[in-house]
Amino acid sequence: MAGITENGRRIMVAIDEGDESIYALTWCLKNLIFKNSKDHLILLYVKPPRVVYSAFDGTGYLFSSDITATMEKYSQQVADCVLEKAKLICGDVQNVETRIENGDPRDVICEAVQKLGVDILVMGSHGYGVIKRAFLGSVSNHCAQNVKCPVLIVKKPKSNAGGDN
Amino acid sequence: MAGITENGRRIMVAIDEGDESIYALTWCLKNLIFKNSKDHLILLYVKPPRVVYSAFDGTGYLFSSDITATMEKYSQQVADCVLEKAKLICGDVQNVETRIENGDPRDVICEAVQKLGVDILVMGSHGYGVIKRAFLGSVSNHCAQNVKCPVLIVKKPKSNAGGDN
Repeated sequence: MAGITENGRRIMVAIDEGDESIYALTWCLKNLIFKNSKDHLILLYVKPPRVVYSAFDGTGYLFSSDITATMEKYSQQVADCVLEKAKLICGDVQNVETRIENGDPRDVICEAVQKLGVDILVMGSHGYGVIKRAFLGSVSNHCAQNVKCPVLIVKKPKSNAGGDN
Repeated sequence: MAGITENGRRIMVAIDEGDESIYALTWCLKNLIFKNSKDHLILLYVKPPRVVYSAFDGTGYLFSSDITATMEKYSQQVADCVLEKAKLICGDVQNVETRIENGDPRDVICEAVQKLGVDILVMGSHGYGVIKRAFLGSVSNHCAQNVKCPVLIVKKPKSNAGGDN
């Protein structure tokens, strides 16, 4: 009865800037993926939507296209940097794919799981920082309820906690 | 970097009467546990608290000790039967332990994880039936938030759904 699927599993890890997603990835590499497996590891980074200020709202602010372009470039650099760091952690795992998507992480992760035929979604329980979480709600909660595949929620132990717990 | 812990993992699967927990167990055996591993599998069944009627409440009902004893015996038989069925599903997995505990599943599962040094908790997303869930809230949600170890929530696909989805 017991036995890992011969063709390997498609494991997606949701990565963000926080320590907790890197802890989840490290835990996954140590406890879920075995050496020389055919597992396919997908590291997904979602660039959350920026707060958009309209010229017509109370603040009167409007971002010029220059500022928007600079912010977009910065956001892309952060995404590249975070995924590069995550890929380094994967060390000798053979099949690692990185992806950057845009949008509300809750929707984007659910859609990506479906589109890419993911077998297991791995994520930290407190991704996307305290402030973004206040706007977006708990991404992990949403995904656990709505994603079609099994979801593994990895919590960083408090004794090792960084600033995000 | 990659490599399952040599001493095996302590994997707990929360089992109840519903199809979803049996699906979660089957999924776990197929996708998480590999042949001849040293993994230790703990099947935990929690007998949820019964609704207690007091002689002083509006209904005027009071359960005699006979009825209470009969209910308790029935409840124990159900627990034994469910765990026996679950153990059969585990087939040739070597280290399987079954446990029956009493109380609110949310608290009992969290405590058991801590007490038994569990590495991964596996559970269906919709355990404990529609009516009990209305009283108890979502057990999987609570555990995902409060359990100290990583939690894997396995959802039964709707196409195969039984009566509990």
